[in-house]
Amino acid sequence: MSSIQPWKTLSSQLVFDNQWCRVRQDKVELPSGILIDDYFVNVRPDIVLILAVTPEREIVFVRQYRHGVGEILLELPGGSFDPQLEDSLSAARRELEEETGYVAEQMIPLARLYDNPVKDTNTINLILAENAHPSGKQQLDLTEDVEIVLLSEEETLAKISTGEICVCGTVTALFLGLKVLSQC
Amino acid sequence: MSSIQPWKTLSSQLVFDNQWCRVRQDKVELPSGILIDDYFVNVRPDIVLILAVTPEREIVFVRQYRHGVGEILLELPGGSFDPQLEDSLSAARRELEEETGYVAEQMIPLARLYDNPVKDTNTINLILAENAHPSGKQQLDLTEDVEIVLLSEEETLAKISTGEICVCGTVTALFLGLKVLSQC
Repeated sequence: MSSIQPWKTLSSQLVFDNQWCRVRQDKVELPSGILIDDYFVNVRPDIVLILAVTPEREIVFVRQYRHGVGEILLELPGGSFDPQLEDSLSAARRELEEETGYVAEQMIPLARLYDNPVKDTNTINLILAENAHPSGKQQLDLTEDVEIVLLSEEETLAKISTGEICVCGTVTALFLGLKVLSQC
Repeated sequence: MSSIQPWKTLSSQLVFDNQWCRVRQDKVELPSGILIDDYFVNVRPDIVLILAVTPEREIVFVRQYRHGVGEILLELPGGSFDPQLEDSLSAARRELEEETGYVAEQMIPLARLYDNPVKDTNTINLILAENAHPSGKQQLDLTEDVEIVLLSEEETLAKISTGEICVCGTVTALFLGLKVLSQC
């Protein structure tokens, strides 16, 4: 039996409330009795990340500019969703088609993880999409500029080793998904 | 040659500036000419995460309450560091001892990744610590309440499958580190 206890939230208010960035300030009481009146949490939407594999066993990647770190990165396609409005599999299907123009016959949940459970509220939902093929309906937002890159499993693992694939969620989805695929 | 171009930052200011939470608002110009005047970025410190393995091949985990998601989670030990003041290996050595009381003879970098390159500035540095053993010098912050849990490789993989180990950085470090260890 674990001795670790949760904290008690005494009060909670949004101190920065913009459509794209929401910061909540909580007043909390720790099990030791210590009070913290400025614990900040970023309220963020849940995320889906899709490992889409073609019948030729190629993986569908996107190359995009990412302004948080100011770099052009190679990642799995994904996006945010509201679990009140759609489940993670529907969100994965929608995001995959919008961002890459690919559709997939079979969507399999790989894992529901936390990105940063210390500071952020959101989950990251990793989905395997098998038999993915282009539908021709890529629909990017005005701010999106996306290059589609298809890589074999060997090329993918090499790019993880060299650090060209360097986003945590993408690497996790690849390891979990390739393990599932190797058992098929 | 990729057609993807970076955005141009026209101006940048901290709009929320607290010791524990810093939000930057950038005015950016996209390659298409579109201007966005409210792109928000969370300025966050870099993180180290340590996969410490004992001579008996057990992995050192910590169980802690995480207020962002309001749950008690099982993770690898880690913490933030300032790359101006110490490198990731020194930070890993320090954080491992402070948080768990373990020290390790050998520290090997596994990967330098991004957690959320869309919204956050920080890197997450995954470090393998071999021959880890207790030094008896665990030094927790007043707000930290940490239970040390040792798990075998088999137990660890089972807990990833069941979802008990559910933090993205921890899962990535485990996959990368166990791959390195299997080659020793």
